[in-house]
Amino acid sequence: MFKTIHLKTTERFQMVEILDEIKNYVAESGVRYGVVVIHVPHTTAGVTLNKNYDPVVQNDILTKLKDIVPKEDHYGHIEGNSDAHIKVSLIGSTETLIVDDGRIELGMFQSVFLCEFDGPKKRRINIKILSDK
Amino acid sequence: MFKTIHLKTTERFQMVEILDEIKNYVAESGVRYGVVVIHVPHTTAGVTLNKNYDPVVQNDILTKLKDIVPKEDHYGHIEGNSDAHIKVSLIGSTETLIVDDGRIELGMFQSVFLCEFDGPKKRRINIKILSDK
Amino acid sequence: MFKTIHLKTTERFQMVEILDEIKNYVAESGVRYGVVVIHVPHTTAGVTLNKNYDPVVQNDILTKLKDIVPKEDHYGHIEGNSDAHIKVSLIGSTETLIVDDGRIELGMFQSVFLCEFDGPKKRRINIKILSDK
Repeated sequence: MFKTIHLKTTERFQMVEILDEIKNYVAESGVRYGVVVIHVPHTTAGVTLNKNYDPVVQNDILTKLKDIVPKEDHYGHIEGNSDAHIKVSLIGSTETLIVDDGRIELGMFQSVFLCEFDGPKKRRINIKILSDK
Repeated sequence: MFKTIHLKTTERFQMVEILDEIKNYVAESGVRYGVVVIHVPHTTAGVTLNKNYDPVVQNDILTKLKDIVPKEDHYGHIEGNSDAHIKVSLIGSTETLIVDDGRIELGMFQSVFLCEFDGPKKRRINIKILSDK
Repeated sequence: MFKTIHLKTTERFQMVEILDEIKNYVAESGVRYGVVVIHVPHTTAGVTLNKNYDPVVQNDILTKLKDIVPKEDHYGHIEGNSDAHIKVSLIGSTETLIVDDGRIELGMFQSVFLCEFDGPKKRRINIKILSDK
């Protein structure tokens, strides 16, 4: 079971919660025990797990990433988005989640976010479900 | 096969080796070929693979993370642990390990650590084993 | 299906593209639907997904990582490669890729790189393929 979801980001830096789309696909698949692999097929956007309850946390994450990897620096890449590539390698492009009894195992306030570092852009997220059986 | 292990951290910043618990569960499962997914269901603690032979390495990792993401900064999140959330997105919340012939494939000094960034706290680690067959 | 590939890095800091080796193993395995787990069994080299089209991007990533985690600092580890261990925990040691219709799902310019942080060294990369069926 494999699906690609599509979304449009609206800011250069943005965390977009994508848990509902993943949950819906798990429900649709009927898989009760297994894993879900999330893959962002871009090199200037990544994926992370973090807190969804307070959007300020997402803002703090993005702000600190901008401090650590500023947009302007002595970069060689001429497209002007080297900072976005670097941030992706720090945050990562894949996550593997556990499905147990039809439910994605996550902490109470833990969710899944696409991390946009060079938006606004059209983005894809690949979702693969592997069943136990 | 899915299991949650529980532990208590004792420091605000701490790396706790969890390889024995994972190894025991793989042995118990009887799975000889497959993968193990490790998931930390918290947003202020993560998981990483690194060296277990010299505990000073763990200390160097935690100290440098504190330099990169200081506890106090212009954070918006009012709970006072934004730094912990940011560190989690840098380190990650999931790992997928390979099981071959009943053995978890790791380097000679490579091990699995829960990374506590906002302890001391009670923490859970989800372990899922997917068999090849 | 499990395989270890071997390579020699030639620099202290280097990103080595390993996608061809992974593609070849997927083709050889005959698996059309499933996932591929990539694991680097070292603690001073990691794995990341990023852009392969412009090698300058790889250079920008490595240069910025050297800024964030300098080789010399107040590290306790006496082997002189604490920076490499820290970089590995930031970049990560595992990736899980999706295989659909015999093809590894990646973005157009997205590829897989071993990240050498303490070379030149002989390195191994573990590749595990899990089939859907």
